[in-house]
Amino acid sequence: MTDRIHGGNCLKRNIIDFSVNTNPLGLPKGLSDIISKNTDRILRYPDPSSERLKRKLAALHRVGPENITMGNGSIELIYLIPAAFKIKKALIITPTFSEYEFAVRSNGLNPAFFNVSEKDNFNINCGKLSERLPRHDAVFLCNPNNPTGSVLHNDDVLYLSRLDRKRKGLLILDEAFIEFNTDSKRTTIISEAVKNGSLVILRSLTKFFAMPGLRLGYVIGHKRIIERIVKLQYPWNVNGLAQLAGEKVLADKVYMDRTRLFIAKERQYMFERLGNVKGLKVYPSSANFILCKLVNAPVQGSGELTQRLLRKGIYIRACGNFRGLNDKFFRVAVRRRDDNNLLINSIEKALR
Amino acid sequence: MTDRIHGGNCLKRNIIDFSVNTNPLGLPKGLSDIISKNTDRILRYPDPSSERLKRKLAALHRVGPENITMGNGSIELIYLIPAAFKIKKALIITPTFSEYEFAVRSNGLNPAFFNVSEKDNFNINCGKLSERLPRHDAVFLCNPNNPTGSVLHNDDVLYLSRLDRKRKGLLILDEAFIEFNTDSKRTTIISEAVKNGSLVILRSLTKFFAMPGLRLGYVIGHKRIIERIVKLQYPWNVNGLAQLAGEKVLADKVYMDRTRLFIAKERQYMFERLGNVKGLKVYPSSANFILCKLVNAPVQGSGELTQRLLRKGIYIRACGNFRGLNDKFFRVAVRRRDDNNLLINSIEKALR
Repeated sequence: MTDRIHGGNCLKRNIIDFSVNTNPLGLPKGLSDIISKNTDRILRYPDPSSERLKRKLAALHRVGPENITMGNGSIELIYLIPAAFKIKKALIITPTFSEYEFAVRSNGLNPAFFNVSEKDNFNINCGKLSERLPRHDAVFLCNPNNPTGSVLHNDDVLYLSRLDRKRKGLLILDEAFIEFNTDSKRTTIISEAVKNGSLVILRSLTKFFAMPGLRLGYVIGHKRIIERIVKLQYPWNVNGLAQLAGEKVLADKVYMDRTRLFIAKERQYMFERLGNVKGLKVYPSSANFILCKLVNAPVQGSGELTQRLLRKGIYIRACGNFRGLNDKFFRVAVRRRDDNNLLINSIEKALR
Repeated sequence: MTDRIHGGNCLKRNIIDFSVNTNPLGLPKGLSDIISKNTDRILRYPDPSSERLKRKLAALHRVGPENITMGNGSIELIYLIPAAFKIKKALIITPTFSEYEFAVRSNGLNPAFFNVSEKDNFNINCGKLSERLPRHDAVFLCNPNNPTGSVLHNDDVLYLSRLDRKRKGLLILDEAFIEFNTDSKRTTIISEAVKNGSLVILRSLTKFFAMPGLRLGYVIGHKRIIERIVKLQYPWNVNGLAQLAGEKVLADKVYMDRTRLFIAKERQYMFERLGNVKGLKVYPSSANFILCKLVNAPVQGSGELTQRLLRKGIYIRACGNFRGLNDKFFRVAVRRRDDNNLLINSIEKALR
């Protein structure tokens, strides 16, 4: 079992945190004010099942409110799903977000792993994967994937989900980072999920709207799928300020469009510049972060690099504790240009 | 199965809400400002397991941080406990908070019920209860009890928990309302819980500190008991603003003392005045609410009374959907004197 270490745990102030994958533009305009002016929400119980927010999300995704249930972060839903569907043999596509494994284990099960190869740039070989499917009743797939940034084309996801449908398995598709993609509307397979009872889609509002402190995620699926999850949920799971924030930010199309363009441009810049650093291999990413590998670099590993950068006030995510990766790998978030330049220059110096 | 209806769901403004059992003094002084000035907390992930807050609570209760785990409201913990202890035969002492039943059922089990009699003023007969214990592996007990306000003396709770210990059962003691009691330090059996692995104590910060919108609860028990619950918990379950608020309010001794004196005095006042209303029976309470019963009153039931009072801008909690009660019962929270007078006068008029 891997260590339970995550990005975003750097609690020291004045450190530029590249370990956390949230929107570098900061909170949507006016959100801080809205929270400040509505502290009376604290005095009242939240709506037990976040009906208003659910309806807004349903409208945004053109599904029914019965196709959605909210979570205290999508992590609540990740932990509920194995119990809700009485999963017995889960397959996790690695390297990936380590909490799928912890969620499965917390339900008393040992997951199996399908390792995506470094040689394939961490892209999934769907043919090989489909051979493994029949022996499992659930597959966890993160798309775009954390920490590799690789993305599976929606034709492939559809193919997998339909295979699952035939054999009555469940595809748990975590689209936590898909909104950062300019292609997100084309890439998502939400329209399939509401029809196909073998597919659930996890979404996060935390990362895209830079509000991880509030906790807000949701799951989209067929009505029957949602009912099974809701049955295990406790009331008032989403706090009142998260509900308020969620309702407000979904109306901010300017922030959404600006973010996607910003990330696309800045990611390309980082990809090119990091790719030119001697001793570094950089993997193509469709998310708001980039996976890098030390290749013949003059440091022991990403642990040592992390320590060196920390002295310069920069924190990166060493990836040695991801199953399927090793101490040569690290992940950096896409941030604003000044920060990104500081990161790139500092890495260059450290690897000189 | 009873309907899933709760107090505190009255979303209309300008209604005085007696259905919700939170502190009538409102937020502790300065809390609203602290939230307003710290909206940058939204931008950061919360501490995944609320370590700072846990340490403060541990110091307050004179236990170790290993004896506590935090919940997204105590309701998160109520739902986790049946799974964490693989409970098979749960006994719920009724009438009580309906979520114990829902939590047990959401884990796929049918609970049994020990009905406390109206004739005994809803006080538990410990002799009779102890006869039922051997056939169950877990007992849910709310102390003081919601909605009856009755309290079990700590000698009796100790007696029950030690019976549980002998037969390796679990006593789940919900002390969500105990802090409202001037006797709370004497009544709680926290010091026993950290030694006795057959006892867990649930606590809420939501109700006493009037911040149900933020969600904050915890459980205290033996280190081994806590470990079993933590194993099922997902990270970042408590949001950053709830953590911040929790840390601040625990230092406000003035608010705590003032609340206890205020509730004791105001509850006594309400008990006496409501007790003098013709057509009403009132039950003694050790919490911040009072259970009332319509006796030969000129209304059909508490549903009709609720509708009549709503027209006057007052909302009470009809208790017809509590297992073990019926449509003759309703519950009112202890609020400020002006509100309480308005309630009492309006009930008097309605029952004339």
